[in-house]
Amino acid sequence: MYGAGDVRVEETAVPRIVEPTDAVVRVTLACVCGSDLHPYRSLPAAEEGVPMGHEFLGVVEETGSEVTGLAKGDFVVSPFAFADNTCAICRDGFQTACPRGGWYGNGGVGGAQAEAVRVPQAAGTLVKLPGDVDGALLPSLLTLSDVYLTGYHAAHMGRVSAGKTVTVIGDGAVGLSAVLASARMGAERIILMGRHQARTDLGREWGATEVVAERGEEGVARVRELTGGEGSHIVLEAVGLMPAYEQAYGIVRPGGIISRVGVPQYEEAPVGFGSLFGKNATLTGGPAPVRAYLDAALQDVLDGRIDPGRVFDAEVPLDQVADAYRAMDTRTHLKVMVRP
Amino acid sequence: MYGAGDVRVEETAVPRIVEPTDAVVRVTLACVCGSDLHPYRSLPAAEEGVPMGHEFLGVVEETGSEVTGLAKGDFVVSPFAFADNTCAICRDGFQTACPRGGWYGNGGVGGAQAEAVRVPQAAGTLVKLPGDVDGALLPSLLTLSDVYLTGYHAAHMGRVSAGKTVTVIGDGAVGLSAVLASARMGAERIILMGRHQARTDLGREWGATEVVAERGEEGVARVRELTGGEGSHIVLEAVGLMPAYEQAYGIVRPGGIISRVGVPQYEEAPVGFGSLFGKNATLTGGPAPVRAYLDAALQDVLDGRIDPGRVFDAEVPLDQVADAYRAMDTRTHLKVMVRP
Repeated sequence: MYGAGDVRVEETAVPRIVEPTDAVVRVTLACVCGSDLHPYRSLPAAEEGVPMGHEFLGVVEETGSEVTGLAKGDFVVSPFAFADNTCAICRDGFQTACPRGGWYGNGGVGGAQAEAVRVPQAAGTLVKLPGDVDGALLPSLLTLSDVYLTGYHAAHMGRVSAGKTVTVIGDGAVGLSAVLASARMGAERIILMGRHQARTDLGREWGATEVVAERGEEGVARVRELTGGEGSHIVLEAVGLMPAYEQAYGIVRPGGIISRVGVPQYEEAPVGFGSLFGKNATLTGGPAPVRAYLDAALQDVLDGRIDPGRVFDAEVPLDQVADAYRAMDTRTHLKVMVRP
Repeated sequence: MYGAGDVRVEETAVPRIVEPTDAVVRVTLACVCGSDLHPYRSLPAAEEGVPMGHEFLGVVEETGSEVTGLAKGDFVVSPFAFADNTCAICRDGFQTACPRGGWYGNGGVGGAQAEAVRVPQAAGTLVKLPGDVDGALLPSLLTLSDVYLTGYHAAHMGRVSAGKTVTVIGDGAVGLSAVLASARMGAERIILMGRHQARTDLGREWGATEVVAERGEEGVARVRELTGGEGSHIVLEAVGLMPAYEQAYGIVRPGGIISRVGVPQYEEAPVGFGSLFGKNATLTGGPAPVRAYLDAALQDVLDGRIDPGRVFDAEVPLDQVADAYRAMDTRTHLKVMVRP
């Protein structure tokens, strides 16, 4: 990506092992993330492009001398952030803050919207998949790289449980994943705030009990009305923009939890007496430590208990990846797979 | 209080029953709160004074026709906020957000730095004390009105438990109470950030394992060093000013919790990728629902398990209450009792 709206497919240097803890993975299937749309709308034009993409399935091509548990030919899924998965922070379940971890597309590591990618901390990062897995499951397996488990993280940090009313702000792929995860965790009511019917219909299939199309103050009033004036125990914010944050503190119940997973496009926000503090609202969330949840979710997908791959409604070959950005930016498609 | 630094003692109308759910209580012992110092430093001068004080022990003088469980002559402690203690929000344990609740010194309800005060929602608010309680316990009982249970609330919302490292920002009476509560909850390490030795000495007696006198970036660096570079699992912020908030997100460990009970003197604050979101830090806290914790803490005081009254280091008669403000503002005294 060379700037807002400017996505190009180029030949670059072939990824190679740099550190002994690296692997090189040939990408089988990748996709475009809602968070990729933030730079797609705002990145300043530059001479040098930024490698894009951080969600992928692939086949291990080469491993560094210190990589254990992986071999050439293994079929793997990668979390969107790499991590050693052994340090104290990883053991706490916060792999996205691993001191030896990092992000694809940064610091000399390539993006996953590519034919191949170098994976640092490969032993801690990559999770092996059955080599003979049913091809129909690939989209759902791809969601374990980020989108489904980001929605899951929202619900997990929001402490969704039986008897709770959960409101999900955003009908994008992460918001819908948060609906699915909340239903799995036993939420009593799930209010989905969104206005794109094909999406909210999928949300209903996944467990949304009510859909609120209104936004802003009207949306806040509607959710308060639906909850007897008390507000929602838990609000999962899957957008990342200030109006969504404002909605969140408007509808959260006293003592309730706002869990954010949309990457915030702001640094400062209201947190004082009039927003969070006065009603003892908790603000939580961050980049999902996908690795912490991956093994259990993988089994759920393989056993057919969840089908998060339904967030994908299109696929393009790698050389048409710019079309995928356009389709998601205009909301023509929900989430687009990219096949090298 | 007629403005910053302008505290006067005046004859006002005698408090009377207004609503059938009211009681009138003759105040036995009150005190000045750290939060009273915020207006003491910044309240614009006005023609009409604001009634002050919200912490008190007293004797019931009269009850409204709908007040159950209380009678003239009962010795009681009042939480700093009144609440019906029966609604869904109160049952959740968030009495400070009760729709029928409110604050002393507001909306026609007087302050507790007075000879008597009208208590709305008296049945839900007031807690009876043994009439023959040892006089030496009165300071500790008075802390159940606010300060000790505000420190307790910080630790409770921060989910302090065995094995955790807790950092308390602020060596005021609430910060020290947070140390005491954290020790009771089994925290492994308690780092107290403060520089007033008489106070940090009491903090050490109550369970602080380390004291950090540095502030700002130096203070952050020192706590990070003490925690092997990882930061503190839990940060209890008992100040309410922006530098304390900035310290809090600087020292919290990835996936950790910042729990605020100092009334924020700001509305907007950093919450984006560079402060809270990037490391999945949780921000929680608010006005303590003292009523939720009062019964258990009362038993702890009566049985001698805790002695939170040690935060009081002076007492004045009501007509010298202005001296109490001055002494606390200049940090000559930690917390001052007021006896009508």
